[in-house]
Amino acid sequence: MGPVTLADIQVTPLRRIATAGGDVLHAIKRTDPGFVGFGEAYFSWVHAGSVKAWKRHHRMTLNLVVPVGLVRFAFTLEPAAAVFREFDIGEDHYARVTVPPGIWFGFHGLRSASLVLNAASIPHDPDEVDRLPPEAIPFTWSHE
Amino acid sequence: MGPVTLADIQVTPLRRIATAGGDVLHAIKRTDPGFVGFGEAYFSWVHAGSVKAWKRHHRMTLNLVVPVGLVRFAFTLEPAAAVFREFDIGEDHYARVTVPPGIWFGFHGLRSASLVLNAASIPHDPDEVDRLPPEAIPFTWSHE
Repeated sequence: MGPVTLADIQVTPLRRIATAGGDVLHAIKRTDPGFVGFGEAYFSWVHAGSVKAWKRHHRMTLNLVVPVGLVRFAFTLEPAAAVFREFDIGEDHYARVTVPPGIWFGFHGLRSASLVLNAASIPHDPDEVDRLPPEAIPFTWSHE
Repeated sequence: MGPVTLADIQVTPLRRIATAGGDVLHAIKRTDPGFVGFGEAYFSWVHAGSVKAWKRHHRMTLNLVVPVGLVRFAFTLEPAAAVFREFDIGEDHYARVTVPPGIWFGFHGLRSASLVLNAASIPHDPDEVDRLPPEAIPFTWSHE
């Protein structure tokens, strides 16, 4: 495999199954595309209008699912490159975003409070994460 | 190990970490108590007042986390035994419930809409699940 590219980010539509008493929502199976091992699952709330950015993992593959609300995710390879991929994912556009290591990413809450699940390939380890403040990468979060 | 008992259900308090833009909530790590392998993660919504019951898994260990709302879980070994364990788990009482195979369980939404994550040890397999209708096991869901 060559170096990671933004095309390596996978978006996989997920099923939402109507069930008496409340829907069942798929997230990730070990046989799914994008599954490369399980290390930790954790949630991040993101308030409407808030931006959580930027991070880059050296070893973790992220699997991101948004069961509540709507979240804009943005991805870039280089802070100065000004080349991005972005996806709006949430309860009405229900999908899993798989992000391999080596990609800068951030996210923005688009609706009330949104809940992001990361089913990550390794447990959280602060030593494998690079961080930059939101303004370090010039992405326009609100362009609606 | 002898046969499963209700004492084998583990409740593990989880951390909720205040973070700019929205809290981070732990769910499960592969090094945590109760982790016996990862098969699938999925969500179930449960409406306030709704009961989803009863199921018993033959092979799946459940790891249940409620990031939204408040849910009453009930557990029993035998439909006729009338011996139960129960826990109210949710955003204000944030914990993980680990349920080994062989235990009947159900749950009840106590507040608005509640979201249950199951980080399960095996992928969903209808052949390893027994089901009974809610009225088959006489548990009093609302006793407040």
